[in-house]
Amino acid sequence: MTAPAATPSVDRHRASPFLRACRGEPGNRVPVWFMRQAGRSLPEYHEVRGSGSILDAIRVPDLAAEITLQPVRRYGVDAAILYSDIVVPVAALGFGVDVAPGIGPVVDQPFRSASDLRRLRPLEPELDTPYVLETVRILAGELSVPLIGFAGAPFTVASYLIEGRPSRTYAATKALMHTDPSLWHALMGRLADLAVASLRSQVEAGAAAVQLFDSWAGALSRPDYEEFVRPHSARVFAGVADLGVPRIHFGVVTGELLGSMAAAGADVVGVDWRVTLDDARARVGPGIALQGNLDPALCLAPWPAVQAGVRDVLARNGGHPGHVFNLGHGVLPETNPAILERVVDLVHAEGRADEAAR
Amino acid sequence: MTAPAATPSVDRHRASPFLRACRGEPGNRVPVWFMRQAGRSLPEYHEVRGSGSILDAIRVPDLAAEITLQPVRRYGVDAAILYSDIVVPVAALGFGVDVAPGIGPVVDQPFRSASDLRRLRPLEPELDTPYVLETVRILAGELSVPLIGFAGAPFTVASYLIEGRPSRTYAATKALMHTDPSLWHALMGRLADLAVASLRSQVEAGAAAVQLFDSWAGALSRPDYEEFVRPHSARVFAGVADLGVPRIHFGVVTGELLGSMAAAGADVVGVDWRVTLDDARARVGPGIALQGNLDPALCLAPWPAVQAGVRDVLARNGGHPGHVFNLGHGVLPETNPAILERVVDLVHAEGRADEAAR
Repeated sequence: MTAPAATPSVDRHRASPFLRACRGEPGNRVPVWFMRQAGRSLPEYHEVRGSGSILDAIRVPDLAAEITLQPVRRYGVDAAILYSDIVVPVAALGFGVDVAPGIGPVVDQPFRSASDLRRLRPLEPELDTPYVLETVRILAGELSVPLIGFAGAPFTVASYLIEGRPSRTYAATKALMHTDPSLWHALMGRLADLAVASLRSQVEAGAAAVQLFDSWAGALSRPDYEEFVRPHSARVFAGVADLGVPRIHFGVVTGELLGSMAAAGADVVGVDWRVTLDDARARVGPGIALQGNLDPALCLAPWPAVQAGVRDVLARNGGHPGHVFNLGHGVLPETNPAILERVVDLVHAEGRADEAAR
Repeated sequence: MTAPAATPSVDRHRASPFLRACRGEPGNRVPVWFMRQAGRSLPEYHEVRGSGSILDAIRVPDLAAEITLQPVRRYGVDAAILYSDIVVPVAALGFGVDVAPGIGPVVDQPFRSASDLRRLRPLEPELDTPYVLETVRILAGELSVPLIGFAGAPFTVASYLIEGRPSRTYAATKALMHTDPSLWHALMGRLADLAVASLRSQVEAGAAAVQLFDSWAGALSRPDYEEFVRPHSARVFAGVADLGVPRIHFGVVTGELLGSMAAAGADVVGVDWRVTLDDARARVGPGIALQGNLDPALCLAPWPAVQAGVRDVLARNGGHPGHVFNLGHGVLPETNPAILERVVDLVHAEGRADEAAR
């Protein structure tokens, strides 16, 4: 018997190393996957991808599913992550956002005033993003490991809509936040609704875990984060709590925010490479699993340096069962896939050794 | 009587609020200055600056001195910082570096191998950068507040020389660090020597404090920082210790490194806005002053939000005498100078109130 709320995909993979680690349960190996494991760094990706916007590729389920599967085949990672983008829901609503190659999300008419709220109606996933759900369904049938669905957290999506393009300072975003808090909260509420709708539909179609990317929340002071951001992220997590899937939360440069991000309702908190896992565990508190945190730039160094880095991450975790090995941010495009293959093998080998030693 | 090593400028300003706060001594107000207070955000700067590279402007002492003085006149800040750039010494040696408007430092032929070490001979400040010293001498005669001289820390300068341009990942820098540690340490050693020579010459010409900018050190994990970077920064601080001037150390995203950066030998540690000052003080330990840490992006918001932010910084400091108010990073170019004027007035007013209350 399974809990009523659990979905078939969660049930099917319940004993997988990845889901066990997300729940903090001991398993027979340390699971590993890599943010941005699909895509730019893989030659087989460039073979199938073609040119044009990533948003076009995402709209072709067979292609998106193939790209999602490629790193699972090559690396033997313990989880797949849907090939998609955090701006897919807002793009599907016609907000006028695209992902420019080499730049990132760009918006024709950035969010400026209350009248722009009308451009963010509720998402109807089966109508607005049917291709995402079709991709998830294909993958649920083909994958032997759990599929991670994902969404952009309200702050990070808001930053793109307001800045109009990637920013180093988030000055316009912070100005809106402090200038017009009621408009800010209205915008964040809409984006939280979008994230909930998107994540629910992905889980119902077969995703066995979800990750909420608040990639740029680390640009905020903790007081600003807790006042202007966390309530909305918390609403996203609460909105998927009944589905029974692990909820992962991640951003870079979030050392000061790890405890706050855990308190938003995450089951697993992603950690960038700046914070050691022992420090991170002290900050998130008990009962929360960690994901991370090898410096992705270290993967461009020769193998002995990478090997030492992997071992340091494992050592800092100290054998805690609630650990999903990952990089501290996405795979860099210039990464040699052969290095990541060796990282997976090393994590699996050393993880088993750790288990045997206990 | 003054200590033999103390310079005339230190002596002259010994009782200034800025130098007192750097030494952790109670004063009659909280001193304030702003990183990048000179330059881009001031209309009077654009009036005198002309076009061309910043390196050209730095080579004209009357102009560089005028630009340094402008924010002191306008804001009434408690310290001036030399109008210069951290790549001035390597540029003066003919390394082939310029500062491209809107981009930052760019290098014609990036540092790649041991043969590039020859391009970094010892700096002879009176011969290589006489214009810097002339600017400092002009300022020492004109300023009523202490002048802060500065240099780039070895890691941050190395990152420019290796990457060839500003980077988000520092991938080439980290790869060199791990691929060829002996070359890495040789490079860092040369850059430490340059920083020492430059800082000593600035103090001897009249600077009353020095700041070592390791702006991008926060991209490193703490173990990497402590192995590959800190020994060289420590050598810079040790190399100016006998001059008797406060040594300030700053980088962004350094929350995990604050204790390590203090241990490198700084008297004052700059803090970005991500870490509250009470947390920062716990990390740097007793006897170290703090500088910071209002979010520069907050200065683009309406005054009530800025005011609340300033008060929060002061409150988090809790009246500790070792506090130099500043932003958590440089003034953003689009900042309205009128806001910074009000920040200075507020810090001075509230700082006095704090003192009166004790």
